[in-house]
Amino acid sequence: LVESWSFLDTAESNFRPLVVIELAKGTKEETIEWFTKRIVDKKANGGAQLLVKPLVTENEVENIYLVGASHLRLLLGAEAVGLVKECSDNSMRTFTYSSRKTFKHYADDNHDFLTMAECQYIIKHELENLRAKEEKMIPGYPQAKLYPGKSVVRRLLTSGILVQIFPLHDREELKKLSHSWYGRVKIGYQPLDDIRCYFGETIALYFGFLEYFTFALIPMAVIGIPYYVFAWEDYDKYVMFATFNLLWSTVILEVWKRMCAILTYRWGTLLMKRQFEEPRPGFHGVLGINPVTGREEPMYSSIKRQLRIYLVSLPFVCLCLYFSLYVMMIYFDLEQWALDYHKENESNFSSLMLYVPSIIYAVVIEIMNLIYRYAAEFLTSWENHRLESSYQNHLILKVLVFNFLNCFASLFYIAFVMFDMKLLRQSLATLLITSQILNQFAESLLPYWLQKRYNRRMKKRMCSTKTDMDLSLAEQVNMEKEMGTYLGTFDDYLELFLQFGYVSLFSCVYPLAAVFAVLNNITEIYSDALKMCRVYKRPFAEPTANIGVWQLAFETMSVISVVTNCILIGMSPEVDALFPDSKMDLVLTVALVEHLLLAIKFIMAFVIPDKPRDIQMKLAKLEFESLEALKQQVRAFQMQLHFVLIHH
Amino acid sequence: LVESWSFLDTAESNFRPLVVIELAKGTKEETIEWFTKRIVDKKANGGAQLLVKPLVTENEVENIYLVGASHLRLLLGAEAVGLVKECSDNSMRTFTYSSRKTFKHYADDNHDFLTMAECQYIIKHELENLRAKEEKMIPGYPQAKLYPGKSVVRRLLTSGILVQIFPLHDREELKKLSHSWYGRVKIGYQPLDDIRCYFGETIALYFGFLEYFTFALIPMAVIGIPYYVFAWEDYDKYVMFATFNLLWSTVILEVWKRMCAILTYRWGTLLMKRQFEEPRPGFHGVLGINPVTGREEPMYSSIKRQLRIYLVSLPFVCLCLYFSLYVMMIYFDLEQWALDYHKENESNFSSLMLYVPSIIYAVVIEIMNLIYRYAAEFLTSWENHRLESSYQNHLILKVLVFNFLNCFASLFYIAFVMFDMKLLRQSLATLLITSQILNQFAESLLPYWLQKRYNRRMKKRMCSTKTDMDLSLAEQVNMEKEMGTYLGTFDDYLELFLQFGYVSLFSCVYPLAAVFAVLNNITEIYSDALKMCRVYKRPFAEPTANIGVWQLAFETMSVISVVTNCILIGMSPEVDALFPDSKMDLVLTVALVEHLLLAIKFIMAFVIPDKPRDIQMKLAKLEFESLEALKQQVRAFQMQLHFVLIHH
Repeated sequence: LVESWSFLDTAESNFRPLVVIELAKGTKEETIEWFTKRIVDKKANGGAQLLVKPLVTENEVENIYLVGASHLRLLLGAEAVGLVKECSDNSMRTFTYSSRKTFKHYADDNHDFLTMAECQYIIKHELENLRAKEEKMIPGYPQAKLYPGKSVVRRLLTSGILVQIFPLHDREELKKLSHSWYGRVKIGYQPLDDIRCYFGETIALYFGFLEYFTFALIPMAVIGIPYYVFAWEDYDKYVMFATFNLLWSTVILEVWKRMCAILTYRWGTLLMKRQFEEPRPGFHGVLGINPVTGREEPMYSSIKRQLRIYLVSLPFVCLCLYFSLYVMMIYFDLEQWALDYHKENESNFSSLMLYVPSIIYAVVIEIMNLIYRYAAEFLTSWENHRLESSYQNHLILKVLVFNFLNCFASLFYIAFVMFDMKLLRQSLATLLITSQILNQFAESLLPYWLQKRYNRRMKKRMCSTKTDMDLSLAEQVNMEKEMGTYLGTFDDYLELFLQFGYVSLFSCVYPLAAVFAVLNNITEIYSDALKMCRVYKRPFAEPTANIGVWQLAFETMSVISVVTNCILIGMSPEVDALFPDSKMDLVLTVALVEHLLLAIKFIMAFVIPDKPRDIQMKLAKLEFESLEALKQQVRAFQMQLHFVLIHH
Repeated sequence: LVESWSFLDTAESNFRPLVVIELAKGTKEETIEWFTKRIVDKKANGGAQLLVKPLVTENEVENIYLVGASHLRLLLGAEAVGLVKECSDNSMRTFTYSSRKTFKHYADDNHDFLTMAECQYIIKHELENLRAKEEKMIPGYPQAKLYPGKSVVRRLLTSGILVQIFPLHDREELKKLSHSWYGRVKIGYQPLDDIRCYFGETIALYFGFLEYFTFALIPMAVIGIPYYVFAWEDYDKYVMFATFNLLWSTVILEVWKRMCAILTYRWGTLLMKRQFEEPRPGFHGVLGINPVTGREEPMYSSIKRQLRIYLVSLPFVCLCLYFSLYVMMIYFDLEQWALDYHKENESNFSSLMLYVPSIIYAVVIEIMNLIYRYAAEFLTSWENHRLESSYQNHLILKVLVFNFLNCFASLFYIAFVMFDMKLLRQSLATLLITSQILNQFAESLLPYWLQKRYNRRMKKRMCSTKTDMDLSLAEQVNMEKEMGTYLGTFDDYLELFLQFGYVSLFSCVYPLAAVFAVLNNITEIYSDALKMCRVYKRPFAEPTANIGVWQLAFETMSVISVVTNCILIGMSPEVDALFPDSKMDLVLTVALVEHLLLAIKFIMAFVIPDKPRDIQMKLAKLEFESLEALKQQVRAFQMQLHFVLIHH
């Protein structure tokens, strides 16, 4: 009887497959038995208390299992992960099973109270928290060691027994979403709430940022167009544009924080408590006692890691930077050669040839970025960081520094060493446009086309002419498991970051950059949406409250752009003419203006509150309530004590 | 029987007076009766459940009451204010009555488990949280309106019925503390932990900062001395000094954060949860419903406040700044006059006269600062801020901006408009030394002398030759209630802030400033200690985890000093001589170096962790434990549910 509950709802009618587990071909029977038993086992016995069903396919060699959970189990899991949902009185509160009736749309038979993405996130969390008890190794694989408290799934993944875990798509929902997202050509906002329901907060927030950023660029683009149309070359106009640009970029970054707070409050992640961070899967070391948790887990000396960072990674990054500068010098040689060629034979072809070095250089930059990216990932992983967040920070820092130099060094050189504004404008335009075209192609169209071709062959093999909607579960799983894995929003943010650099660093010499950025971002929204819906496996939802380190990266870029733009304006012949007597006065004025602008930037960043007033009020209300509840507890306890003291 | 507990320990033997309440002379009998009843009434009836005793003096007109509490009541109060104490396993934890046995030094009969300052803080908290129930007014005073939830003590204070509440000194403890603190001349650290036990965290942290800052200035002073002794005038040496100074000032401010974390972790305030902030006593408005707490309380339109700030306060501050600049110009006229006088009759007297304008100006600056201080307090109070923290921030901002300009405008003018380095050095020295002497005098010696005189007359009146230790309780209370009230650490921090400005803003022209600062601070420690122990009433302890907005103020000052020092160095003839061909190159180099230094500053501030590693670990451990406890709760609940599901 006691055993019965966990298997109770395994009945076909109740089982809704949510997550797919693919084990390696030829995984030993005893391992499979042990693993599935652990998954369905009761919480009290250290299991995950989920439901598991093997996928029945004609292909017998494949070990694919579907994981689901009973409605009750999911609600308890929602409490365990600390999900925040909307209450009937429109406030956001942390969900608990005992207070479930106070939540909006809750009903005992409403199985849509938790979105599918939330259910999948809960299952992922429960699977990852399935921990070894007394097992010393994974049954059947003596080399895959376990110790009490080690996450079973992580060990299975690192030892290659578990090939992948991924959440299933919901064909119907996906169709609805993709229709409202990119299916029809329309002017308007993206369905961010629907995206969040389907893909989770991290991805929805990226699309929110992409949309916000695009809208924020429109004023710059609108002001930039007449510069091109009327071929305005007066520097006073450029100065106006640059000043607007600088203040604008500060404002949009500050306002984004407020927008982000509004979105994540609505989604509940602003209030979500940070979970305790477990070691990342790749982390290895000698078993020891973690002083924080008191648990046995691998330990790795922080000094060793520091040595690896400062003696290997840092020199390597410097070397790469040097190499990048070397390539830049080759580009300048090429540029010179093209110019000479153009001078020798003035023809249409030769004037076209002027653009070739920049295009080649742009392609080379993209290739170098790509190779460096792999190297940085390898190095950072080799540094053996304990936490995923620390790994991510080191990776992002490495990649940002290199990409910044790789993309912008030539522009800085042209602007501040060669003082060639015409070449700067030409280079900037070519680099920006080429990199945008390459990115759009490499990121979305290529994978989409490959996926399409694969799907067509797949369907042919299955001898059917069914549309996506009619696929059986087995066919759907087989199709999705071959799809590429979405590796997170890193590359998408990086692309936006570099674009922001192109737009703002030299905005006063090339106002048209904003126009190209807007155009690119509109297609980017569509191609990224397509990528998410059609090209990649569904990713697990990740709750997040902000865009993290990218906010800092964008703000740093906007500080640097104040400096570059001030120098560019100072170097212009028109501004020069204002100070005919003394170069000194010019430089001092420029320096003064720059410091003033920086001071205004910092004061603005300080004065504009990061959260809108109503969100602040709601947060204050929640804090007040929890403090009151605590006080009530203390008071109730004191009353009890009072009685005890009197009656004894 | 039920009534008995709250009066149980009122027995003379148990009553230890902790806090003194002084009511206005001639307060109505019914008011006194009502107020004391509310104080001793049980928590369940909305009272504070404290003990009250009238002070018996020969002077019958005075309404002085002593407040104490039973040991149990204090322990429960410690839980209510969220006190953090050290456990037997050396970790810091929030005190709860139920877990009291796990705390270090806890025993049911150990009445020293809570320090006297903590007990007084608890009593203050309980008194302030004594709230009106159904009363519409204070009995006997129909004009003193009350509404449910209004703090009774605050209304009594604002309506003048309650003259003051202050904690009693502990003569014996005070003697011990003052002996180890300033009683003997010794080289060494202050007894910060004892200061904290006696005066609370805010004051101990100020003395900690003062001591730390003095030690941090010593390297600058040591390096500065040879400049004076050997009359080094080479600018390369000044450049070295300035560079060291800039990096050093960044390092010390970052390291202070770490020191502060170590101190406040040990004192428990780093972990203390922020209490919900009540409206400040002076806040007034029309009764309304607070959207956050849902309680009835005065509301004041934020738009009205903004109007007051931007239409009255801001113009007033600007006017004051203008006036300060006007006074500065008068000073320069005086300076010119003194110079002319010196040229006409070259004598010892006339060369002494050269210093007179600076000294007069320094005195005028101090007077203006003082007057402005009162004006700023009046204005900020008139702006009617709801929270004490918001009031403080607006006051500090107003005062900082004015004091900065008032003190340093003349130096900036001399340095960057008159380019007179000799006058700058002379002015800086005179301003610094004069202001230090004035401050020491006005702050400590004068009140000390007045207090001494008053005490002597007081004792004479009492016709006794007893020492402090032999005073009866009544005599002690009567003496202490006449002492001045310590108004908080604001002025002390402000003095250090301005000193930091004198030392760092123009450090490369006057290295000796650090020497004077160190000498001043050593006497400052003694005179401030004397002030705290002998001149002022004992202040209530205020828990705090850091020096708050002053950290930001000091960091801003160190950023400004990078800019000023770079300009000063750039202006020096020696650096000038390095660029004989082009002034441009000089300015560009200086600008480049300045940007580099600022970048290094920001990177250093970013890289140096704000908390030492072991404190981080301890905090992580606590966070982990609280998350685990929550998980355990959820799990226990799920088990219960499990059983219910099976057995029904």
